[in-house]
Amino acid sequence: MPVISDKGRLMPESPIRKLVPYAETAKKQGRKVYHLNIGQPDIKTPKIALDAVKNNTIEILEYARSEGSDQYREKLAAYYKSKDITITAKDIIISTGGSEALLFAMGTVADYGDEVIIPEPFYANYNGFATASGVKVVPVVSSIEHNFALPPIEEFEKLITPKTKAILICNPGNPTGYLYSREEIRKLADIVKKHNLFLISDEVYREFAYDDAKHYSIMREASIADNAIMIDSVSKRYSMCGARIGCLVSRNKEVIATALKFAQARLSSPTYAQIASEAALETPQSYFDDVIKEYVSRRDLLIGELENIDGVRVAKPKGAFYCIAELPVKDADDFARWLLEDYELNNETVMVAPAAGFYSTPGMGTDQVRIAYVLKKEDLRKAVNILREALKVYPGRK
Amino acid sequence: MPVISDKGRLMPESPIRKLVPYAETAKKQGRKVYHLNIGQPDIKTPKIALDAVKNNTIEILEYARSEGSDQYREKLAAYYKSKDITITAKDIIISTGGSEALLFAMGTVADYGDEVIIPEPFYANYNGFATASGVKVVPVVSSIEHNFALPPIEEFEKLITPKTKAILICNPGNPTGYLYSREEIRKLADIVKKHNLFLISDEVYREFAYDDAKHYSIMREASIADNAIMIDSVSKRYSMCGARIGCLVSRNKEVIATALKFAQARLSSPTYAQIASEAALETPQSYFDDVIKEYVSRRDLLIGELENIDGVRVAKPKGAFYCIAELPVKDADDFARWLLEDYELNNETVMVAPAAGFYSTPGMGTDQVRIAYVLKKEDLRKAVNILREALKVYPGRK
Ligand SMILES: Cc1ncc(COP(=O)(O)O)c(C=O)c1O
Ligand SMILES: Cc1ncc(COP(=O)(O)O)c(C=O)c1O
Repeated sequence: MPVISDKGRLMPESPIRKLVPYAETAKKQGRKVYHLNIGQPDIKTPKIALDAVKNNTIEILEYARSEGSDQYREKLAAYYKSKDITITAKDIIISTGGSEALLFAMGTVADYGDEVIIPEPFYANYNGFATASGVKVVPVVSSIEHNFALPPIEEFEKLITPKTKAILICNPGNPTGYLYSREEIRKLADIVKKHNLFLISDEVYREFAYDDAKHYSIMREASIADNAIMIDSVSKRYSMCGARIGCLVSRNKEVIATALKFAQARLSSPTYAQIASEAALETPQSYFDDVIKEYVSRRDLLIGELENIDGVRVAKPKGAFYCIAELPVKDADDFARWLLEDYELNNETVMVAPAAGFYSTPGMGTDQVRIAYVLKKEDLRKAVNILREALKVYPGRK
Repeated sequence: MPVISDKGRLMPESPIRKLVPYAETAKKQGRKVYHLNIGQPDIKTPKIALDAVKNNTIEILEYARSEGSDQYREKLAAYYKSKDITITAKDIIISTGGSEALLFAMGTVADYGDEVIIPEPFYANYNGFATASGVKVVPVVSSIEHNFALPPIEEFEKLITPKTKAILICNPGNPTGYLYSREEIRKLADIVKKHNLFLISDEVYREFAYDDAKHYSIMREASIADNAIMIDSVSKRYSMCGARIGCLVSRNKEVIATALKFAQARLSSPTYAQIASEAALETPQSYFDDVIKEYVSRRDLLIGELENIDGVRVAKPKGAFYCIAELPVKDADDFARWLLEDYELNNETVMVAPAAGFYSTPGMGTDQVRIAYVLKKEDLRKAVNILREALKVYPGRK
């Protein structure tokens, strides 16, 4: 029998999907499961985007341009301009989701065995893209004590080796909800300039910044024009995760020329989704205002309720729609499974994402879970109540 | 300034796209360019697929399942059954184009520095996927003299090393149009069994087999259930290249479990495209009959005309919609550029794909071009006539 590659063996399993079979069993047994575990918003996709697809007049569904159409990229550049990011269509490559843009970025900056420093906890699939690319993730710990702020620059410098090619941040952060300040971005800019590294910033949640905090993109730091690579996506912004459109943005022409070669090999991004994404750019500001208002009130409800549970500590998110909560349990993995297998409150239970999968340092995050606030408030309230009651009787408490 | 990865530097440029700027200049100068260079069919997409997207009732465009929906995969399994391939939905992973399935397959079978043997000339983007995966392509020459038949098995065995992980074939072949016989597939089955290799078969043109020749899939060889990985795509079958849906098929459960991890990292394939692809399965047989009839008559016209040109040799394709033609020129690359830059017949010219990009052995294919017959017959006739007249006056003749 032929043998699977080591790479394939090392590819991480999604920390969320591991629990799916337990959730399915719970549902089969007639229990209702509140999903606090996924980043799939329940917000409606803007009608203007949906209608553009419904009203398309395509007769031959052809390959699109590998880098995306000039027209879409020009409109996107105008959108970024409205966010104080001055770039041109030439600085953009349309990708199949932010996911693919991350893969292009890894391939562009790093060779087999090279290292990318990432503040942890981080979006779990960075591990997958790194493994697929043969790249080593070097974590730098950000901690719940400091609300997941940028780790001190010395901590980064300690980790830089000749193999270090980039620092990758997520801003606002999944799973932390942390929003980096202008000051923090400037510190990162200094360090990547000093050490000739790339700075990759995953800004797929850029629109989700709360409490009058302003999102500060790495693309606004003119001094790192050659270092900065931004990853973006329509998935969360317009609640159109199933479209599969994102982009890679950089002013570094070599980066764009290289990423384009990766893009050409896979021919093009999906055409219908590009129609939806281009139309989505016309979404009125009121849509975002409503969405942000909704997320802020969900967050306030969630955090307020969580803080009221005995033994729970939570970092208040300033962006995105996740938070990390530390629980009074020995092993969050076990707790999450127990919730699905053995617990019910009035025939209902909840599914959370154990946070260990968002760390790459072994042993980190074992008493933490990630909670996504993508449910409407009445469901959130019920779900947190289930958590509270479950923690009272869970046998594996600390 | 930070430095691009060696991988990025080594990523091949598409042999076709290199000429695009010259074609654009020609068009700007008012010349009409017949595109014999691309695999984008001019055939209409089945209405049933287009309508399914137009009539969708999605309100929240959510992530799809990473492996594709059970329903779509079950229907696909039934489609394969109708082609004498008995597999189940569990043996299928839906991918974003055949392109992504190829990338998943490379990652699943090979590590950095491992080798995959591919009969050349081959689909140029195999080079890109191999480079992105850190895999070395080891070519085995199939020659125009033998109409691009499978090279003798000894030639494969000569190339097998401890690093060899798979043999990758394309059946029917792009760029050769070659269709492997049952005998040839059996020879390959023997060799992969003997050496414990994977056999990856890119069958995206499976529907395009001519002259009553039957396409024989590797999935019909029960003896290599653990070795065989089939790549497929809706792009060519339904002329819906812009959908971006394909799949990876294998009865080897470890292969499927591993490819699934790659699929989970990128979350899902495009939702609209999956709607179109599922609906496309209902396309009536008459659609394919018409399309095949059209391609056969185009091929016959093209090959007949090419064979009539002095000094041109062409391998008669039995499938797909490409052929390789040997031209009486010193350098087909130069000829292709010259056609766009310096030649016109009644203000018209043609664009062909120099074949060197489809070989990985340096120096091979330098007097060959790939011609795609994706134009309607009157255009094909005009285009070949332009080629004939151009060859008469081209200064770089052999
Ligand atoms: C931080 C982060 N980056 C990237 C992605 C990938 O999203 P997509 O590929 O849908 O754009 C996600 C999705 O959840 C995410 O949370
Ligand atoms: C031989 C072969 N394999 C795979 C592909 C990839 O096609 P897609 O990603 O559109 O399915 C192509 C496209 O031209 C091809 O010719």
